[in-house]
Amino acid sequence: MTLKCDLQYGRGNAGYKLSRVGVRGVRKPVLVQRQGINNTLNNILNCSIDIFVDLPAEQKGSHMSRNVEVLNEVVEESVSHPITGLEDMAADMCRRLLVHHEYAQTADVTIIAEYFRNSRTPLGRDTYEMYNLMAGGHIERDGALTKKIGVEVVGMTACPCGQQTVTEMLEYPEGLTVMTHNQRNVCTLTLEFPEDISIEADDLIDVVEASFSSSTYELLKRPDEGQVIINAHRNPKFVEDVVRSALENLVARFPDLPDEVYVDVASESEESIHKHNAFAEREGFLGELRGENQ
Amino acid sequence: MTLKCDLQYGRGNAGYKLSRVGVRGVRKPVLVQRQGINNTLNNILNCSIDIFVDLPAEQKGSHMSRNVEVLNEVVEESVSHPITGLEDMAADMCRRLLVHHEYAQTADVTIIAEYFRNSRTPLGRDTYEMYNLMAGGHIERDGALTKKIGVEVVGMTACPCGQQTVTEMLEYPEGLTVMTHNQRNVCTLTLEFPEDISIEADDLIDVVEASFSSSTYELLKRPDEGQVIINAHRNPKFVEDVVRSALENLVARFPDLPDEVYVDVASESEESIHKHNAFAEREGFLGELRGENQ
Amino acid sequence: MTLKCDLQYGRGNAGYKLSRVGVRGVRKPVLVQRQGINNTLNNILNCSIDIFVDLPAEQKGSHMSRNVEVLNEVVEESVSHPITGLEDMAADMCRRLLVHHEYAQTADVTIIAEYFRNSRTPLGRDTYEMYNLMAGGHIERDGALTKKIGVEVVGMTACPCGQQTVTEMLEYPEGLTVMTHNQRNVCTLTLEFPEDISIEADDLIDVVEASFSSSTYELLKRPDEGQVIINAHRNPKFVEDVVRSALENLVARFPDLPDEVYVDVASESEESIHKHNAFAEREGFLGELRGENQ
Amino acid sequence: MTLKCDLQYGRGNAGYKLSRVGVRGVRKPVLVQRQGINNTLNNILNCSIDIFVDLPAEQKGSHMSRNVEVLNEVVEESVSHPITGLEDMAADMCRRLLVHHEYAQTADVTIIAEYFRNSRTPLGRDTYEMYNLMAGGHIERDGALTKKIGVEVVGMTACPCGQQTVTEMLEYPEGLTVMTHNQRNVCTLTLEFPEDISIEADDLIDVVEASFSSSTYELLKRPDEGQVIINAHRNPKFVEDVVRSALENLVARFPDLPDEVYVDVASESEESIHKHNAFAEREGFLGELRGENQ
Repeated sequence: MTLKCDLQYGRGNAGYKLSRVGVRGVRKPVLVQRQGINNTLNNILNCSIDIFVDLPAEQKGSHMSRNVEVLNEVVEESVSHPITGLEDMAADMCRRLLVHHEYAQTADVTIIAEYFRNSRTPLGRDTYEMYNLMAGGHIERDGALTKKIGVEVVGMTACPCGQQTVTEMLEYPEGLTVMTHNQRNVCTLTLEFPEDISIEADDLIDVVEASFSSSTYELLKRPDEGQVIINAHRNPKFVEDVVRSALENLVARFPDLPDEVYVDVASESEESIHKHNAFAEREGFLGELRGENQ
Repeated sequence: MTLKCDLQYGRGNAGYKLSRVGVRGVRKPVLVQRQGINNTLNNILNCSIDIFVDLPAEQKGSHMSRNVEVLNEVVEESVSHPITGLEDMAADMCRRLLVHHEYAQTADVTIIAEYFRNSRTPLGRDTYEMYNLMAGGHIERDGALTKKIGVEVVGMTACPCGQQTVTEMLEYPEGLTVMTHNQRNVCTLTLEFPEDISIEADDLIDVVEASFSSSTYELLKRPDEGQVIINAHRNPKFVEDVVRSALENLVARFPDLPDEVYVDVASESEESIHKHNAFAEREGFLGELRGENQ
Repeated sequence: MTLKCDLQYGRGNAGYKLSRVGVRGVRKPVLVQRQGINNTLNNILNCSIDIFVDLPAEQKGSHMSRNVEVLNEVVEESVSHPITGLEDMAADMCRRLLVHHEYAQTADVTIIAEYFRNSRTPLGRDTYEMYNLMAGGHIERDGALTKKIGVEVVGMTACPCGQQTVTEMLEYPEGLTVMTHNQRNVCTLTLEFPEDISIEADDLIDVVEASFSSSTYELLKRPDEGQVIINAHRNPKFVEDVVRSALENLVARFPDLPDEVYVDVASESEESIHKHNAFAEREGFLGELRGENQ
Repeated sequence: MTLKCDLQYGRGNAGYKLSRVGVRGVRKPVLVQRQGINNTLNNILNCSIDIFVDLPAEQKGSHMSRNVEVLNEVVEESVSHPITGLEDMAADMCRRLLVHHEYAQTADVTIIAEYFRNSRTPLGRDTYEMYNLMAGGHIERDGALTKKIGVEVVGMTACPCGQQTVTEMLEYPEGLTVMTHNQRNVCTLTLEFPEDISIEADDLIDVVEASFSSSTYELLKRPDEGQVIINAHRNPKFVEDVVRSALENLVARFPDLPDEVYVDVASESEESIHKHNAFAEREGFLGELRGENQ
């Protein structure tokens, strides 16, 4: 018996085009070419994946199981040929989606995953830190394919204004590094760019980590803890400053990237003195950014 | 002693403009003109509020406490003059933000809140159901103010394709209402529109509730439970269908809204047969939608 | 037609007793006797409610819709007679559950809700702060009814050890209040006690708020911000200290509560220097606590 | 310079014992002896780990960095000697915690991780499904060490009562498999047992997967989708039934486990006809369970 539900190809109850139709939150481990915990070349990233195509007005439904089939194809091939980056995997999936959904004009893939890598404390101790990666792809039939890569990094901010206020209130002498409120900060940096460009997530993590008052670490023995506190207080930053430092580091790190790369940097401070958060964000083309800060 | 941290007005470490700077997740109860549980005219909505303005390149920091002051002003006034809608409150806050932040060119406010209202089961029993509201405002100095209002409604979908497949597999006679997988569906509808237009969140909830295979209810005694199951299976819907029904209901409900109202409808089914979700979305101007389904 | 599904009364597929069966996450606004935002006596709390009874081995199913009926009865009565406290509502529901489920030997109710109340900054400015309440009831047929009330409060901790380390590293003079890492801390205090006892959630909030390095506030103009920072750094606390201060404040505040009140205090610091949290907790009877710290 | 903060050893502000003090949410990849995606013997599980010891009344603070050191020791050794199970890792960490915290009388470790393994659809297609694992250890100095292992599995329930009601309402003939509401169900099974016992998480997943109306799958082509729907409707289950089936399967699967193994099974249905969930749970010793269902 060949069972075939042809309902999807029928005309629906209302002939509106749909911008995106698909599946969300498919969990899948993926083998990537990246240093793993056992010092092998390849590492496993546990991904959560969203996959969509658009749908023309005259078709009732999208074939959602094809999205999962495309995902599985790509992931299975990763076992013999580990993928070079999550954004490349997203791009690969976008292309195949347009083949499997012959009626679709666009395809969108978004992938998020936890990622671990080595770091080093101020006094030189090795640590292993956690980051979140975001990758994506968007394709237009007869059009270009754009890729996206983003990182989410947790760091620390110490407030410059609190420091100045306390200095005045307690009439501290000039030059003393003064207490202030400090807190956990979550900063994301996302780039969107044409398919032929390659950008390393590790470089983006570096750009963001250098933008906080201080990085944070899983393990700090006493002198390292003191050093982190001192470093952060000698480098006080608003959320605005974190975003701008990330922009500055980004511009300096990637002189060869084209102007049309789209940049989004957001920093959120889980304020220790408030129950709510402070937030700053900049979106814009790399070309604009290059023109601004000269 | 007049303490004044003037750091914010100084030039920052890097002269990039910022798209938005402010506070996120400020919690606040607000008094609105809306039927409450005690049959009084006014009701309290517990809101979570985000408030941002942009920041010019030459200024180091935004005065974030002004955002909370604006919020408090508006909320305090609501006690004597209950607000007419969360989107009006957002608009009011946008205007005041440009006054308090003389350097800002844009302001953005987003508000989310739980909302309860009466509903009725298929067999006529009164129930009290929960919804989520989203409201927002965006202003450009020397430009227009746009408002946003959105609703999130939980309903139920029964899969038409599963029904057809089972009918074939078990060789059921035509006309029998056949079992299929069904599940919780979360559908959001958001409209963005010029300030002079007024739209009721209750109308949007009606539009969405009529788009599921069936509404869901907090309390269903036996015959009502049976009726909900029967209704859903006689009205099977893909997530695509939910979105299109909502679009159709919206177009029919608001013949007088202008074409430039921007519409976003998204439906997510927490599939009972999968561990992941199915999703469909349409974004577009009301004018486009009116042209499509004729 | 009298529809009656008698499946629940039948013997199930496997004759095991069940500890608790019911509904989770029912959302409901409740009218309580408590100062509201509009200075009326009564306030609305948006509650999320879990309601369970046990189930004997010989019965297949519990009648879950009765749980929602009990809930609705109690909430509807609150409109004319506002409830005195969420834990009293939970207790009321427990009693009624044993009437409606004639086969049940125990009933359990848990309620959580957001709660707002006035606070005051160090320099005397009025603010409005958010807290979470937890309330519960547990009844045994032919046994006692116990109530539970808990509060979750967000505050701030400044680390005493970081302060000492920095003092040594920078060779600061004695008596200087030195910088350290500080962060958001979430502290919960829950009491479980016999039905005839009455405890005010507001008193528990007071007990916890006095246990941080400093309270936190929605709005702090410059001098208040400085004062909060100074206060926190002059009162540095580990998470262990927060728990012990709360225990001490609790013992002092409630000299008349009986020894068999069960206490749970937990403090979690969202460490600014780490990506993970620090945590401390004490569980025990009030009698034990009274004996320990003399 | 030997920096040493001795604050922790000092007497605190209030001499209460603390039940548990430590760190929460440390993220860490761990190498385990388990089939991975690349068909190697070893697999990487991304863990979130909580580690606590108790604290005597006379000591101000616990040395939290030692908890992370213990964690790192164990994880680093896993690279050369992959661990046999997360609960064994938890047990190992518990023993070491008592060595590193010479003042502690108890230690507690909890680990959660995502886990993937092969499954097979009703019609024999291979799939790869996601589960959550929970593992733990608790040790008392001069006492026993207990381990804990738990699994969280997502499946599907179809309501037997809805089926009966619809049959009556529509006067369907006997023997027809009738539509009903069905939905995603999340079922957890956790065992707590003495150190010398070994239990495989895979066996627990099997026990739970066999307890739903049907398992769920990442990819179902048409005939498989139909078969899952048919299977679920021929095997309708309340949440109560899921718990009891899991208990029955557990008792049958582990005839050799001792009576003092502590069992907790909980099933939560994300009801398609309600906005809230249905829930059932049984806690008890394996010995009790063996006595009940005969």
